Amino acid sequence: MKILVVNDDGYFAPGVKHLARVASKFGQVVVVAPDSPRSGQSHAVTLVSPLRLHELGQEGNIRYFSCSGTPADCVKLAIKVVFGGTMPDYIFSGINHGSNTASNVVYSGTVAGLMEAALTDVPAVAFSLMDHSLDADFGPFLPYVEQIMGKCIASGRKDICWSVNCPAVPAEDLKGIKVCRLAKALWDEDAVERQDPAGRKYYWLQGDFIRKDEGRDTDLYYADHAYVTLTPLSFDWTDYRELERIKDLF
Amino acid sequence: MKILVVNDDGYFAPGVKHLARVASKFGQVVVVAPDSPRSGQSHAVTLVSPLRLHELGQEGNIRYFSCSGTPADCVKLAIKVVFGGTMPDYIFSGINHGSNTASNVVYSGTVAGLMEAALTDVPAVAFSLMDHSLDADFGPFLPYVEQIMGKCIASGRKDICWSVNCPAVPAEDLKGIKVCRLAKALWDEDAVERQDPAGRKYYWLQGDFIRKDEGRDTDLYYADHAYVTLTPLSFDWTDYRELERIKDLF
Repeated sequence: MKILVVNDDGYFAPGVKHLARVASKFGQVVVVAPDSPRSGQSHAVTLVSPLRLHELGQEGNIRYFSCSGTPADCVKLAIKVVFGGTMPDYIFSGINHGSNTASNVVYSGTVAGLMEAALTDVPAVAFSLMDHSLDADFGPFLPYVEQIMGKCIASGRKDICWSVNCPAVPAEDLKGIKVCRLAKALWDEDAVERQDPAGRKYYWLQGDFIRKDEGRDTDLYYADHAYVTLTPLSFDWTDYRELERIKDLF
Repeated sequence: MKILVVNDDGYFAPGVKHLARVASKFGQVVVVAPDSPRSGQSHAVTLVSPLRLHELGQEGNIRYFSCSGTPADCVKLAIKVVFGGTMPDYIFSGINHGSNTASNVVYSGTVAGLMEAALTDVPAVAFSLMDHSLDADFGPFLPYVEQIMGKCIASGRKDICWSVNCPAVPAEDLKGIKVCRLAKALWDEDAVERQDPAGRKYYWLQGDFIRKDEGRDTDLYYADHAYVTLTPLSFDWTDYRELERIKDLF
């Protein structure tokens, strides 16, 4: 079994190594990860400049590569160059250092890796730990990662596109897995104004995460209550309810 | 009425000027567009470097700004800096030089501008002409752009998130507007291998657009048949059918 692992934090991030090691229990693993952090890069693809790919080394049945592109580029280059045009059996993305709950999926490079896999009909799961720090404790999450990978593989299905988030709590506090929808939320950025040494203005975007959904069936609700959340995602963004409502408007 | 216009091709692209001029029939227009092309940048946001914003000038009731960021950054900076933290009444994105039908929405900066607007509850429409060239003929599309803007505004609704595509055909061949779903399709990229002067390999991604959907109710089908297509989009990517199917799996 051939498994591709990608992420958006870069090949040096502990999260991707944890994910590769869990995946290596199920098959041969290839990691293709960006050579610098690509958080917030969403589904960007690199079309107007060339890409580099470097083999970094091997650890057991895991081969590591770095790529100069985005997470979506990593998936594309891995399939075409490392796998020689054949599809991997599974693609796992992460483990992200930071939450990909709620509307965060729109900005997420980790979720873009997942979506790119789903677009090519490879079953895929994205994993995120709700802790941004580089030395985050992935330990409590790892048994759940293994369980979810196992169920994904055991299902034999090709159309899996799941995004999994784990709250940053001690192992003994985690209550299990909940399958649930995305909450509605948004980032409300302030544009912090500064001046450069020549007196010209520039701006830093600095965001506050605003919840707009008090539902008790969302990923944010269950993560608050110490559950690992699993949300199936779709790359068909058609709003079918709205489609019915406006189909005779024109 | 305050209208924000953004795009992903850059402030110098003819498409954004056409869109601003149509929008200026309905209210005061502010254009905030990237200072270089940002196609394929999806919903990337700029968090680790500062952003620049320059006022370029005025044309009637249209003010033009360039921004060093992505389309999503343009929306955020426009709201915080140009509008001083108040929301515009409408956000229009485009007119993109190139198609944003089918699964292209995943990669699209034009659609990211639309989604960013929708996340902040501003009614929004993205417009794309299915012709990549810089000197594309926008003329046949413009009466439809005006009609759709007019219906968006007349509806009084806050939750509009529509993506509109126009095939590149002469005005007399356009048959009208069809409200329809996204087709399933994908980009199958080849990684073209080259060597730099020092003998090191690099790769260019070069894609073929592969249709995977023969439905007669899709944007690709109707665009093939010379209709302007309108697809309502959602930023809630939860796959609710799959959610029902797997809710008891864990």
